[in-house]
Amino acid sequence: MTNRPPSMPVRADRLRSMSQTPDSAVRTYIEQHRAAFLDDLTAWLRIPSVSAQPDHAPDVRHSADWLAAKLKETGFPTAEVWQTPGAPAVFAEWPSDDPGAPTVLVYGHHDVQPAAREDGWDSDPFEPVVRGNRLYARGAADDKGQVFFHTLGVRAHLAATGRSTPAVHLKLLIEGEEESGSPHFRALVEEQAERLAADTVIVSDTGMWSEDTPTVCTGMRGLAECEIRLYGPDQDIHSGSFGGAVPNPATAAARLVAALHDEHGRVAVPGFYDGVVELTDRERELFAELPFDEERWLRTARSHAAHGEAGHTTLERIWARPTAEVNGIGGGYQGAGSKTIIPATALVKLSFRLVAGQDPGHIERAVRAWAAGQVPAGIRCEIDFGSATRPCLTPLDHPALQSVVRAMGRAFQAPVRFTREGGSGPAADLQEVLGAPVLFLGISVPSDGWHAPNEKVELDLLLKGVETSAYLWGDLAANWRPAS
Amino acid sequence: MTNRPPSMPVRADRLRSMSQTPDSAVRTYIEQHRAAFLDDLTAWLRIPSVSAQPDHAPDVRHSADWLAAKLKETGFPTAEVWQTPGAPAVFAEWPSDDPGAPTVLVYGHHDVQPAAREDGWDSDPFEPVVRGNRLYARGAADDKGQVFFHTLGVRAHLAATGRSTPAVHLKLLIEGEEESGSPHFRALVEEQAERLAADTVIVSDTGMWSEDTPTVCTGMRGLAECEIRLYGPDQDIHSGSFGGAVPNPATAAARLVAALHDEHGRVAVPGFYDGVVELTDRERELFAELPFDEERWLRTARSHAAHGEAGHTTLERIWARPTAEVNGIGGGYQGAGSKTIIPATALVKLSFRLVAGQDPGHIERAVRAWAAGQVPAGIRCEIDFGSATRPCLTPLDHPALQSVVRAMGRAFQAPVRFTREGGSGPAADLQEVLGAPVLFLGISVPSDGWHAPNEKVELDLLLKGVETSAYLWGDLAANWRPAS
Repeated sequence: MTNRPPSMPVRADRLRSMSQTPDSAVRTYIEQHRAAFLDDLTAWLRIPSVSAQPDHAPDVRHSADWLAAKLKETGFPTAEVWQTPGAPAVFAEWPSDDPGAPTVLVYGHHDVQPAAREDGWDSDPFEPVVRGNRLYARGAADDKGQVFFHTLGVRAHLAATGRSTPAVHLKLLIEGEEESGSPHFRALVEEQAERLAADTVIVSDTGMWSEDTPTVCTGMRGLAECEIRLYGPDQDIHSGSFGGAVPNPATAAARLVAALHDEHGRVAVPGFYDGVVELTDRERELFAELPFDEERWLRTARSHAAHGEAGHTTLERIWARPTAEVNGIGGGYQGAGSKTIIPATALVKLSFRLVAGQDPGHIERAVRAWAAGQVPAGIRCEIDFGSATRPCLTPLDHPALQSVVRAMGRAFQAPVRFTREGGSGPAADLQEVLGAPVLFLGISVPSDGWHAPNEKVELDLLLKGVETSAYLWGDLAANWRPAS
Repeated sequence: MTNRPPSMPVRADRLRSMSQTPDSAVRTYIEQHRAAFLDDLTAWLRIPSVSAQPDHAPDVRHSADWLAAKLKETGFPTAEVWQTPGAPAVFAEWPSDDPGAPTVLVYGHHDVQPAAREDGWDSDPFEPVVRGNRLYARGAADDKGQVFFHTLGVRAHLAATGRSTPAVHLKLLIEGEEESGSPHFRALVEEQAERLAADTVIVSDTGMWSEDTPTVCTGMRGLAECEIRLYGPDQDIHSGSFGGAVPNPATAAARLVAALHDEHGRVAVPGFYDGVVELTDRERELFAELPFDEERWLRTARSHAAHGEAGHTTLERIWARPTAEVNGIGGGYQGAGSKTIIPATALVKLSFRLVAGQDPGHIERAVRAWAAGQVPAGIRCEIDFGSATRPCLTPLDHPALQSVVRAMGRAFQAPVRFTREGGSGPAADLQEVLGAPVLFLGISVPSDGWHAPNEKVELDLLLKGVETSAYLWGDLAANWRPAS
């Protein structure tokens, strides 16, 4: 990366005068500004904005300030750093001069995972380097690269269309604590709900299927978590003196977990599936069209068998079916050798992934009722639920989703397919608080190494992200129909 | 405790000349030597022979030397300290002048549990003190008091019968590592099997039902222990990305444990009950005659319900039925808050209490076969069994058992009932290596506080132990019939 002066917006009429098609105008603009764009991104990646490490708090702050300044330079009339009780977020707004235009809120994050050279990086994680056609740095894909493509994207949109403001009212909310579990995000969104109000949310913090298969993610699963504590004897007691004659809380914990699924791999908690939006035949077909290689997926999962709800494929299981998993279990003696006790207590940590139609409050009530009925006499049971994340899902025929598909198709010049995300994220808070559908636009690929050493972004894909962003705002404005 | 000169054997003819009955002669002898006996015991209790604490190794050695010297003083022609790779044992032998007499080996231990004033003791645990009719000190009941009653017992036997040698070939083996799990005991017994050879073994390291209910213990359960490790993904994986689609080793561990018992509380491992010697109707009647208060027992068990194999009482469950217990279970995240993972591994520690007729090798094979059949595809299972302890049980009609009952009945002047011990102990090694039946003669009561602060022995019961020992050798010699 050589140093260049910061890139500045180019007047739209300069491009228009070249008589190109809109798409070639976008591509030309991107090509012309690509080097400066990458220089800027490189400068941002050099800031080690690790939100999980208190030492890096000034860097996270620096990252927010840097981004706000860069967004102003890009042309956003408003770009603010929003303080939270933790790390700051950046909010930017560029209203359309068309007052009837839809409002779009782009979500991403400027904080990154911890990284150190000695973790296995081939180069300093905070000294970005291009090798081949890849840019290596912590945050290259997760998520600075994917936030940043919107900056050149919106300028290419203006340049190619000759507009002085975007075709949509464009807002950005780039949080600073995503890699630390977004502890203050929900409160921030609630507090700033009025300024964040949007017709649709575009989350650029995900990926696509592969280099060859551009995809749009249409939903994320929700999450409910609980800790179940089982109390038996008032202290550990001798298993010789008392074993076989009193209830053992470790056995009770195990029986609870064993009862969580039936013989078909379905969650056996009564009421768990209430309201679940089932996959349509069309959605199942679309999943099945993806070039899924189960053996390869198992290698990624570091696992040795596929296993789950009967009647569903692996992709359906991880994307579209609600699940229950034991994240932790513990009780009694776990050290070397043996200790002949009946333990006083045992612990189970469960998480439930939720899909559209499921309500976390209903799940909590169902699990509490089910657990109470499983525990034998003489064992006391306590259950704590943490804060839950709702699922989000955008229907395939949603006009905003269709716009993303078209924009991506123009950029990639390939059919765009659909995925979902099995995990859960703060995007659901945006959906819930703002009442807006959430779409996912990401260009990262599985090999990008999120949270791992040698994180990278594919430069070609990054520029396709710029291009998608450049097409998206016009398409959204042209095709927007408010939800009925 | 005042200081007195060490007590010395009294010539038998001195007592016989008083024309007392044998029993009153024994009681008179004990009364005459009671103070010196207690002084000696007090001196021994002052030695903090804590085998678990390396700092106390010299004290354990001192305790062995002290005991060997005291046994010689008592009259044992042979009293030796036997080294082991750990703490030393004491062996003593006093042959009968009747060459046809049976040989009896008394087992006990001279090491004690750790104890410190600050654990909640009302007085220094190694400065014995009499309060009321109780002697408080670490080891008062477990096991120095119960070893030591045999020293005055054999002298009272000689005094009352006018014999110069015991009516039986009397051997003592007092180990020094019982409170540390007897790691070298089995090897010692095997190495010294010839010198330890006996027709019957008397273990004085147990207790009786209560102050009012003298009992003889007729057996101990055996013990087989295993650790089962379950391996799923090669590392912890994200439960959002992969949950619901691969097998979870914590779930597999829980299902294994849940499958360990059937709905009747019976162990569901095929073959587990093979060979089990069932309780006879008479034995069940005898158990039921004991003044058992389940509410009180539950308080002792610090538990809140009785629970176990259907069709059996609590006493039957802990004394005469084989059981399976989870001593520990663990896998995944057990800290505060949540961590959305599928853990890579999980662990289960199981112990099986065995009763007469069960073979630890058969149990190990049965558990291995059962576990292998429970584990789903994609989960690898490893099982390690530790060294096992066999069960021991002496039939109610065994002549040696009858002798113990008669001797105890004479001492306590009350009906003697039968108990068993739910735990497992090194006595089983004596049974197995020496091929001799094991009987349990103890005078400790549940309130004695073994392993707890303020351990004590009831002085009246301690002297009943002396008296029982005094009657036992003559009765055994007179009624001994070699096993058919």
